[in-house]
Amino acid sequence: MNVPLTTADFCYRALTVHPTRLGIVDEPGFPGSLGRLTYGETMARAAGLIGALEKMGIGHGERVAVISPNAAKLLISLYGVTGGGRVLVPINFRLTSEEAQYIVDDSGAQLLLVDPELDERFADVRAPRRIVLDGIADAELFAPASADDDWPAVEEGAPATINYTSGTTAAPKGVVLTHRSHWLNAAAVGWGFGVSEADRYLHTLPIFHVNGWGLPLGCAALGVPQVIQRDVRGPDILRRVDAERITLLCGAAPVAATIEQAAQALRDAHEPVPGDGTTRMVSGGAPTPPAVIEHFERTTGWEMLHAYGLTETGPVLTVNRVSPSEGLSPSERAERLAAAGAPLLGVRMRVDGEGEILARTAKGMTGYWQQPERTGAALADGWFVTGDGGTFEHGTLRITDRKKDVIVSGGENVSSVQVESVLHDHPDVVDAAVIGVPHDRWGETVKAFVVLRDGVALDETALIAHCRQSLAGFKCPTSVEQRDALPRTATGKLKKYLLRRPYW
Amino acid sequence: MNVPLTTADFCYRALTVHPTRLGIVDEPGFPGSLGRLTYGETMARAAGLIGALEKMGIGHGERVAVISPNAAKLLISLYGVTGGGRVLVPINFRLTSEEAQYIVDDSGAQLLLVDPELDERFADVRAPRRIVLDGIADAELFAPASADDDWPAVEEGAPATINYTSGTTAAPKGVVLTHRSHWLNAAAVGWGFGVSEADRYLHTLPIFHVNGWGLPLGCAALGVPQVIQRDVRGPDILRRVDAERITLLCGAAPVAATIEQAAQALRDAHEPVPGDGTTRMVSGGAPTPPAVIEHFERTTGWEMLHAYGLTETGPVLTVNRVSPSEGLSPSERAERLAAAGAPLLGVRMRVDGEGEILARTAKGMTGYWQQPERTGAALADGWFVTGDGGTFEHGTLRITDRKKDVIVSGGENVSSVQVESVLHDHPDVVDAAVIGVPHDRWGETVKAFVVLRDGVALDETALIAHCRQSLAGFKCPTSVEQRDALPRTATGKLKKYLLRRPYW
Repeated sequence: MNVPLTTADFCYRALTVHPTRLGIVDEPGFPGSLGRLTYGETMARAAGLIGALEKMGIGHGERVAVISPNAAKLLISLYGVTGGGRVLVPINFRLTSEEAQYIVDDSGAQLLLVDPELDERFADVRAPRRIVLDGIADAELFAPASADDDWPAVEEGAPATINYTSGTTAAPKGVVLTHRSHWLNAAAVGWGFGVSEADRYLHTLPIFHVNGWGLPLGCAALGVPQVIQRDVRGPDILRRVDAERITLLCGAAPVAATIEQAAQALRDAHEPVPGDGTTRMVSGGAPTPPAVIEHFERTTGWEMLHAYGLTETGPVLTVNRVSPSEGLSPSERAERLAAAGAPLLGVRMRVDGEGEILARTAKGMTGYWQQPERTGAALADGWFVTGDGGTFEHGTLRITDRKKDVIVSGGENVSSVQVESVLHDHPDVVDAAVIGVPHDRWGETVKAFVVLRDGVALDETALIAHCRQSLAGFKCPTSVEQRDALPRTATGKLKKYLLRRPYW
Repeated sequence: MNVPLTTADFCYRALTVHPTRLGIVDEPGFPGSLGRLTYGETMARAAGLIGALEKMGIGHGERVAVISPNAAKLLISLYGVTGGGRVLVPINFRLTSEEAQYIVDDSGAQLLLVDPELDERFADVRAPRRIVLDGIADAELFAPASADDDWPAVEEGAPATINYTSGTTAAPKGVVLTHRSHWLNAAAVGWGFGVSEADRYLHTLPIFHVNGWGLPLGCAALGVPQVIQRDVRGPDILRRVDAERITLLCGAAPVAATIEQAAQALRDAHEPVPGDGTTRMVSGGAPTPPAVIEHFERTTGWEMLHAYGLTETGPVLTVNRVSPSEGLSPSERAERLAAAGAPLLGVRMRVDGEGEILARTAKGMTGYWQQPERTGAALADGWFVTGDGGTFEHGTLRITDRKKDVIVSGGENVSSVQVESVLHDHPDVVDAAVIGVPHDRWGETVKAFVVLRDGVALDETALIAHCRQSLAGFKCPTSVEQRDALPRTATGKLKKYLLRRPYW
């Protein structure tokens, strides 16, 4: 049968199979909160959004950008914008206005949706139309409509989202993920993470991050309640895990760290830790050291999984889950869990002669938005070049280093090239190199090395302040060191490994 | 990324992620048994098969037919024949030689593989090449070859299997299922049945039955051991569940019935029932009455699920699973489980104005082998007409009657038209009608109504013996009733509902 795979398949199942089940629990008490919605109500609002976009003249295939922390309306936008055949462009809310503007312009978005709490911060971002997602938007965009099961026809190969990645260079690239990509990723992740009807999911992972790794779709298909978490402070998360009986959540290392601290405080006070024995957390991004995993599992009583992937691969490539039924000791478990894990169904991995990890999967991007040359370079020979170094043995991927100059700080990718370019803009800076160095809370933090004009002394605070004028906070160096010269190859390429060596 | 979905994706994962895990436990003690194989050994033999077929000159896209009860070599044929780009045609071993010959001829199979225990029974089935799967075949076809992870390139839309269905008419039709169909079915079934790395699967369901519903692929991807069961007698199954710590199996109503009887015998003898509290069984085919489900779950201590589908839909359309965490009473559970269940991810259902069930899914067949007209009729408007009557409300499908004249006896489809045609061949038979009537062990059994020549008295045994000459045993009537006339519409169509009414 000639039937396309689309994101609407997940919405259809939520609507027809689980209409009375709890769908979304929005964060209470912020302007625009939708409270508690069943999946029937959720998809009725998604249907309302489809009708509203239609009325506004936003055509199929046109882009709708959105700047929002986790919120019910961000999830409903994912369902309604893509399910109705339009393209969602989720923008990282930690970017500056200028960076957001670049993405709105580059994607050619006809409409920009902005969370009410971010309205002021992004007041100067221009788009043909701009709507703040407060109570007024409810009537205009998210009014429930009768949702039948027959959404607009959409092609499997049509773009569903464009997610911008900072990558290795200053100008962000729009990663085009199709309906096919979303479908296959959500199914492989749902099965791979062991998501079941009995789960209750907490959105600690920012949904704009590669569309919440497919879990917003997978949870909808299974009728798994999705609880919105805007702030990722440990005590708040544990309260939510307790109140909403959460069994599953995802996040980068800093989120795990704040949860562990809050859990330790409860243990110290001889209080029970919510989710002890029932909750699992998938950590993403850089591999977590075994000692950290073991400590996390012991303190929380939760099961830890690990996932690895890139925006370009849809995103999840590998999952590491060690079944408690294997009966390993805590330290053996932790040792195993420190790897990136095994490829998901439909993902092939290999490591080339230079130790660089390549991936090939039907759920990967079709390319970078309007960048055929960069697309061609990234997908040479049909394999995506991850830019990470590692080994793939016995079906297990281990990341040993990140070849591309990407620093992962607090779960966010920072392009060292972009930061270096800003440093170079400073009148006193002659040369600059930026690396990631280990950081207890953020995994990595940004460190800069600069060569200054003759006779100028380093003013660390002033240089960091200079970066803050053009860069999101998480991209700015937290320390700057002065050098007489930077180590370079004969062809002028920075030998960053020499700079990194003392720190790793 | 332009990457096809193929059955080799599942083999790749078994080979790279789980090479040392137990893959197949063949039934011991039959000629040609392969014993116990890891997934590495399993896929090495599949690679050997690919090389052997290549050497024999069987081209990509050519058909390989196989007649076999459950056996390791049948599974390996599924992996190797399809993974290497050829088309597997699994033949129901309960058919007659004539019926099997029709399928070999219609599919144009270049090679016929026959299980050693069936060699004699199917001795007269001709094919360009015929190989018996005994020890000699091991060297010729299944010698382990070094299995690298790079199997031949195969198109997503290329046929992987052709499964013949008796359907409503005498001539069986070849249902073409592509690699895409297999992939999507195996993933949706695997996730929908909740298959996990901790499972151990018992092949009680005949693997030739729509390729074991996708579980041979899903289990391989997850490294789930697959234990072969050739005979489906309750005591044998329970011994196997015990010895191999089985957690999952599938089967039609008669298999559940024989398991329940064996479990009851253990209970009566105050012996523990293997799998009590850990095993789940998926029943397929006709819906099971609530009382039967409740009794089965109480006697075995197993969890029962139900699945519904057709060969043409890949096969599984709906799954009914009631999570124990819902805390329903045994009778409430059984009441819920008596429905066909909820559509799997990627499956849409509706019921037309006449109460007939329609399905639409990307994993459905591309059509009937070399039958464009019948294909066009079956897939009119892009929906597959199931031929079953029912309701689809609150996301739950309930089967109320089978509109097409298919009788499901012991999990096998029997075409009443085919049986009627054989009855009509008898010199004394003037008119004939065949229906299914309820049967404790087989679900349904075949019952015939005949109008005989004037003055001839019914000889039930002789008429049944007449049928046995041309039909597989499970298709023959188990009772025959004489009538003066059969109820027909004005246009001459049999009013079978009048015949069925007293029995249902």
